[in-house]
Amino acid sequence: MREVFQQELQEVQERLVEISGLVAVSIENATRAFHESNVTLAEQVIADDDKIDSLSVSLDELAIDILARQQPVARDLRIVVSALRISASLERMGDMAEHIAQLARYRFPEKVVPKSLRPTFTELGELDVAIARKLTQLLLTEDVTLAEEIRNDDDRIDELHLSVFDKVLGETWKGAPADTVDATLASRYHERFADHAVSISKKVLYLATGDWVGAEA
Amino acid sequence: MREVFQQELQEVQERLVEISGLVAVSIENATRAFHESNVTLAEQVIADDDKIDSLSVSLDELAIDILARQQPVARDLRIVVSALRISASLERMGDMAEHIAQLARYRFPEKVVPKSLRPTFTELGELDVAIARKLTQLLLTEDVTLAEEIRNDDDRIDELHLSVFDKVLGETWKGAPADTVDATLASRYHERFADHAVSISKKVLYLATGDWVGAEA
Repeated sequence: MREVFQQELQEVQERLVEISGLVAVSIENATRAFHESNVTLAEQVIADDDKIDSLSVSLDELAIDILARQQPVARDLRIVVSALRISASLERMGDMAEHIAQLARYRFPEKVVPKSLRPTFTELGELDVAIARKLTQLLLTEDVTLAEEIRNDDDRIDELHLSVFDKVLGETWKGAPADTVDATLASRYHERFADHAVSISKKVLYLATGDWVGAEA
Repeated sequence: MREVFQQELQEVQERLVEISGLVAVSIENATRAFHESNVTLAEQVIADDDKIDSLSVSLDELAIDILARQQPVARDLRIVVSALRISASLERMGDMAEHIAQLARYRFPEKVVPKSLRPTFTELGELDVAIARKLTQLLLTEDVTLAEEIRNDDDRIDELHLSVFDKVLGETWKGAPADTVDATLASRYHERFADHAVSISKKVLYLATGDWVGAEA
């Protein structure tokens, strides 16, 4: 029974890694679509989100099935409950990638953000992609140094997110209202994407170390 | 054992109703703070969110404890897992109320939205408050007609949300970039608040009727 349970937990972990890998591809495609006004790539991201959603639902069903059959307690139970939460956060990260792609599609053939904000959004995009890849590695290896890196990347994203508001509310901002709306939403989506990754990495950290501090956040 | 379990489920339900009631108070205070530029009320909402967060964490701990001790299966297991998800959504609804209050505080003593958008935000606020109250009743009574009402209210919110973009992107928009940013974010927070309520009401509907269609969304 114990051995079956361990195999099932491994299956859960593999599926989380798979979904996280797809999220990493989606955010990479979404940020490329966003910067290159690539409507085909944007539509790819939007279509791929259905796959992420359905994998997430099916992982949830597996986790609930494991709860019913294996009746885990203590740490084993926490692992399965954490998997349900991580699945929900990955699903939301996929949604954020989709929202970024949708902005690119709505604005096509225009670029989504004016020149003055492009370096900021380039860095936001690169950081979100880096975070998604580190998250996939973290879920695979439970290497806790990655959780620390993700948190640092998120701190930088928060700075960039605030700098977007400074820019669009500053004296030199020449953007049209549409630019202001797009910059506001895109920045928010990038920031939320990273928040979910931090929240997941806290849960992995807890499972790896038993330190629950902040893992509920 | 069965009787203890039923009592524990009732405890879970009562706590969900309690948190939902607090969320309803918060969104009411947040929308009042937003419309009246009432910074004291805004700070109240921000402080109250800590209480919502901590009640949500403690409900999660109770649910996990029930899973460990009672080892529920089938429908009973679904109820406990749904409670965990409902708790997470209520916690996010509290965050949305807090974000709306934060906009009011940042903008004080100015009003958050210009005159031309006030009727729209008044209606958005009233609908979110109505939704939160209906959700509390739904969690208490499992009266499924309330789920239908919440979905209709959410449809109207989606229309209003789109109309905010039409307005700020339209020819007649005279708002400063700060108005555009605030309207964009505030509208998004109102819309997300309602989305979470719809997601919760689908789960309650499933538990009341056994119809899982869409309950994962």
